[in-house]
Parts: sequence; C-alpha cells; structure tokens
Amino acid sequence: MSEGMRVALDAMGGDNAPGETVLGAIRAAREYGIGVYLVGREEAIRAELAKHDTNGLDLPIVHTDEVIEMDEHPADAVRRKRQASMTLALQLVRDGKALGAVSAGNSGAMMAAALFTLRRIPGIERPALGGIFPTSGLPSLVLDIGANTDCKPEYLQQFALMGSIYMERIFKIASPRVALLSNGEEETKGNKQVVEAHQLLKTSAETLGIRFIGNVEGRDIPVGKADVVVCDGFVGNVVLKLSEGLAESLLGLIREQMTSTLLRKLAAAILRPGLRSVFSKLDYAEYGGVPLLGVNGSAIVSHGRSNAKAIKNALRVARQTAETDVTGAISAGMQKLQSTITPKAAVPEK
Amino acid sequence: MSEGMRVALDAMGGDNAPGETVLGAIRAAREYGIGVYLVGREEAIRAELAKHDTNGLDLPIVHTDEVIEMDEHPADAVRRKRQASMTLALQLVRDGKALGAVSAGNSGAMMAAALFTLRRIPGIERPALGGIFPTSGLPSLVLDIGANTDCKPEYLQQFALMGSIYMERIFKIASPRVALLSNGEEETKGNKQVVEAHQLLKTSAETLGIRFIGNVEGRDIPVGKADVVVCDGFVGNVVLKLSEGLAESLLGLIREQMTSTLLRKLAAAILRPGLRSVFSKLDYAEYGGVPLLGVNGSAIVSHGRSNAKAIKNALRVARQTAETDVTGAISAGMQKLQSTITPKAAVPEK
Repeated sequence: MSEGMRVALDAMGGDNAPGETVLGAIRAAREYGIGVYLVGREEAIRAELAKHDTNGLDLPIVHTDEVIEMDEHPADAVRRKRQASMTLALQLVRDGKALGAVSAGNSGAMMAAALFTLRRIPGIERPALGGIFPTSGLPSLVLDIGANTDCKPEYLQQFALMGSIYMERIFKIASPRVALLSNGEEETKGNKQVVEAHQLLKTSAETLGIRFIGNVEGRDIPVGKADVVVCDGFVGNVVLKLSEGLAESLLGLIREQMTSTLLRKLAAAILRPGLRSVFSKLDYAEYGGVPLLGVNGSAIVSHGRSNAKAIKNALRVARQTAETDVTGAISAGMQKLQSTITPKAAVPEK
Repeated sequence: MSEGMRVALDAMGGDNAPGETVLGAIRAAREYGIGVYLVGREEAIRAELAKHDTNGLDLPIVHTDEVIEMDEHPADAVRRKRQASMTLALQLVRDGKALGAVSAGNSGAMMAAALFTLRRIPGIERPALGGIFPTSGLPSLVLDIGANTDCKPEYLQQFALMGSIYMERIFKIASPRVALLSNGEEETKGNKQVVEAHQLLKTSAETLGIRFIGNVEGRDIPVGKADVVVCDGFVGNVVLKLSEGLAESLLGLIREQMTSTLLRKLAAAILRPGLRSVFSKLDYAEYGGVPLLGVNGSAIVSHGRSNAKAIKNALRVARQTAETDVTGAISAGMQKLQSTITPKAAVPEK
C-alpha cells in the first residue's frame, strides 16, 4: 500500500481528537491509499488505532507530548511549544518528508505555525485562507476568510492569483472566473481598497494568467457567478459566517414548519431524501478543510469540529494540493508579475 | 378622513410606477387613514386614480414633469432636475407640509436629494441607510447598507445611535441591543476601523443612551442576537445582498426537490402554508423600504421593484418615523455626545 509520500496529520488537533482524527486517517489510507504520519501522543494514538482494523495501512506515528490547545493565544503558543503536534506536522512538510499537513486544532496557531515553519512564497505578502462556498454548481473559493483583516490592494491581487490556481488544480476548473467582491458591478464601485485592487487586477490579469471578470456583489456568490471571490479577511469572515448562520436559520424555520402537525410530518418524510441532498451541499465535511495559500507547502486548516469524514477529505485535498504543485504555480505567477512591475515612480499618474 | 398631515410620495419612482405607487397610496389612505401627496405627472397619476374607488380619500396631486430615471447618475440628475418628483416630495417635508417622503425611484438620487434638501442633523457626519433584516423574532436593523463605503470609526458610532433610536421607536423595542459587526466577539477583533469604533462605543454608550452589547459575527445576524447591527456601507451592502441571494438559492434548491416527482408534489402541497409563512418573513414588501437616517426629516427609500403593498407600508413607516420624532431624538443624542467630547489633543494617549 505505502507508495509515494505521506501526508502529516496533527492527530491531537480538534474537538474530536484523537478519536476522529485517527479514524479519518484510517479511512483516507484505506479509501485513497494515502500514507499518513500521525503526529501526537503515541499512547493515545495507539489506543485509537487498536479500535480499528489497520492491517496493511501506512500509518506511522510521530510522537510528541506537546499539543496547542484551542483557547491558547496562537502566536504565543507556537513560540512556546516548539514540539507541538501541528508544528511537527508542518516540519515534516518543510523537510520534504510529507506532501502536506492537516490540522483541525487552533486555527490561528496553525496559520502562525505554517508561516513560521514553511515561510511565505516569494512575492506573497500575506498568506490567505480560502473558504469553500457551496453553490448550485461547483463550489466557489472565497478568500481571504480571516487571516488578514486589513488588506492593501496588492494583497487582494495576490489572493486572486492564489485562488485561481487552487480552483484550477483542485476543482479542475479550466480558467476559473476570478472576481472582486464589491457593492456594485461597475469598476468604480467599492471601498478605496477594492477600487484600487480592481485596477491592479485589470492591468495584471494577463501577466498573472488569470481570468478576471470584474466585480461581483453579495447576491452573486451563492449562484456561483465567480469561481474565485476575492475580498479582505474581515469581509470574507462575515460572508462565511453569515452564510452558515443564515442557512442554519432558514433550514431550522423550514424544519419547524414541517413538524408542526402529524400530516406535515408525513409529508416531510416523503421529502426527506430530496432535502437531504440540499443539506449535504452545506456539509463542510465534504471539503475537509480550507487551504492556507501562500506558504511554501500544502497546509490544510480543518474545522475544530471535524469528524472522521472531514479529516479524510482534508488529507485527500492536502495530497492533491501537493501533487498538482499549487505552491510552484503560485511562485511562478508571482515571479512573472514581479518581472513586469515598473517601479511606482515611473508609472504616469492618471 | 383627512386629519393630520400628509406623507409625500414620489408617484413616478420605481419600476412599477405610477400604477403600483398610486395603488399603494390608495391602500395606505384607506387602511391607515394616511393622506398622501402624489407627486409627479398629473395626467398619468389621474389615469391611475381613475381605475380605483378613491371616494373620501385624501390624495392630492402635486404636479411636476421632471422625473429622475433609474439609470441616471444620482448627484448629476438631482442637480440638473430641480423639479424632479422625488425632490419636490422632499421639499414638502422640508417646508413642513409633509410628515415624510417616500420614493422607490433611483435610490442614489433619493439619498442625494434628501441630503441636499433636508440637510444633515447637526453632528451627524454621514447619513446612513438602515436595512431591515428578517430574523426568527423581530427584524434587526443593519446599517449602513450602502450609503457610505469608507467609514471613519466616528461614523459607525453615529450609526449606532441612529439605529438604536429607529428600532426603539419604529419596532417598539425597549433598549435595543446594539452591536458592531466584526470577525470575532472579542473587542480586539476587527479591522482597524471596527476596533476603534468598539472603543468609541464602549466609552460613549451611556452618554448616547444606547445599549452596546459589543461585537457580533456574521452568524449572529440571522438569529437576531442584536437589534441593531452596525457596519460600514460596503460590508452592509455585501451582507444584505448575500442574504437575499442565499435565501433565494436555498429556497430554489428546496423547491426543485419538492417538485421532482408527483408524490413529492403532493407532499409539498401539504407543507405549502407552513413554508409560505417562512417565505413571507423574507418579503421585503412587509417593511416597505429602508430609512435614510441622519437627515432632517423622515425619508424612506423603497425598493425599485416595489409593489403596492411595499409602497403602502413605506408610507406607514414614513408617518411613524415623523410621529415618533426619530429625527429629534437623534439630534438630542448628538448634542449630548458633543457636549461631553473632550478635544482630541486633551485625551491622554494609551
């Protein structure tokens, strides 16, 4: 079974670790033939492994006692706990021993550790988290969803490049449609940062090799008008959490109506399979986690509540991100951009 | 019937004018006893009135030939068309002849005309549009939803005051919960502008007489965690449009599932009344339009697609805004705030 390289999993990360993390790794190993480094407390991991049939699976343990807890201050914890399970997982990537790293632990710490261990891709000023947004068709990538609350227009330009490469390689979308999130479609619409980013993207799209389709509005996200929706981390965070909250509320209201009388309950039973297919679109576990783009290597940040299915899918995505060389493509795009940038003083003012 | 003052309606504003606007005025007059100035082309209005029984209703026409079209540049159009129907409606308010003004026409122009005609309340730097957001309980007010894309922290502070007064007086919420929209609940979370606004609100809430509950996240909006959600117009616009789009998409997906087989269609028929009650929560026409807060007078901006029901409700809200003296209360709050503000240089730096 164990051919190719492994993916490194922070076996201690997340609310359901190590039970669900280890089970997720077992499933990834069995279903996708992925070898997984299980990084964390050996005894605890071994106890979980013993509960399942792991015959023939490539699941080596990398022991460490240190674990970063969910409520620790991200940067402090990363600095203090040099042997933390998530950091060791990332070091395996840095040292060329693992294809990618996955953690469902403290997400701020995972980002800090990734930045610290893997470093930024040259030219990328701020790595970004790409959130997977379900639409009626293929999902869209919204980035940044929270790593950077205050963004310069250049950051948004870099997010556009990273998002485009990710969607092309992971979701196999040829020439993804990249858009800026704004309060109107016209290029004059937006806050200062977005209006400037629009001009940057308009002039650099060809160099970057991306298909910039202009601005989209909030209503365009759920219908999938763009494959990549670029915004700062403050707006992206609001977008993601509002969507989750709204979907939950609406489905809750509907569920309430469906169970208010016996007759309605019967009717609801008939509709259940259909509705389940709607609900499953909203299941974050389908996508496993969100990529941290812009660091030198494949790093997937999974939801703190991740179950085995989410971990399994995150491990798959981590491998895919490495195998399709997302990092290399981002690096190449940034090199092209930088080779064409004229020093600011030489650009004529409008 | 015609006691008290009238509300001024831009009878020519909106995609369905003057048919639906006139009908909305007739219904408001009959159901709520509201007198309405119908401002616009007399002949067209008269033709619409003739289609209905208007016996005993107080619906005087104020004639003007000029109308601002939906696709005109707001500020330009307002400057050029001095006799535009929406401007005349606002002048009736300014001159003390009408309680409030309603327009479903070009919303940018309505805002510009209101600012120009009614002027700002002293101390209010930027008037804001307050969007009504349906929740499982009473609706929340999100402001600003698009009048101001780039906001200083002080603007957000003023939005908080205006929103609190509006929800208290129009939705009869005693001591509305006012929150800042952010990417986390902690007061250190947010972009620069939000972090600063948090401190401003924390220190001034008592003076302003508002109940500041801190930050809320995107997921808290649909569950109604705050009665007033304060954000800049860029974020507010994204929030509102995303919510509309997402609700439409989700309900569309559900509808699709409900009609995919004959049996499911039957089941759906049983559930229809219940689902209709969910849908009606999302019907913007229930609230009639959104208030432009911070100008000297009651001005309601209705949706371009407004039907008679929306216009009827907008006229009701316009009257209520005037009768509860929202403007006076905002003015009083600002005076209090200004009387306590220490000149910036005198405030010790942290």
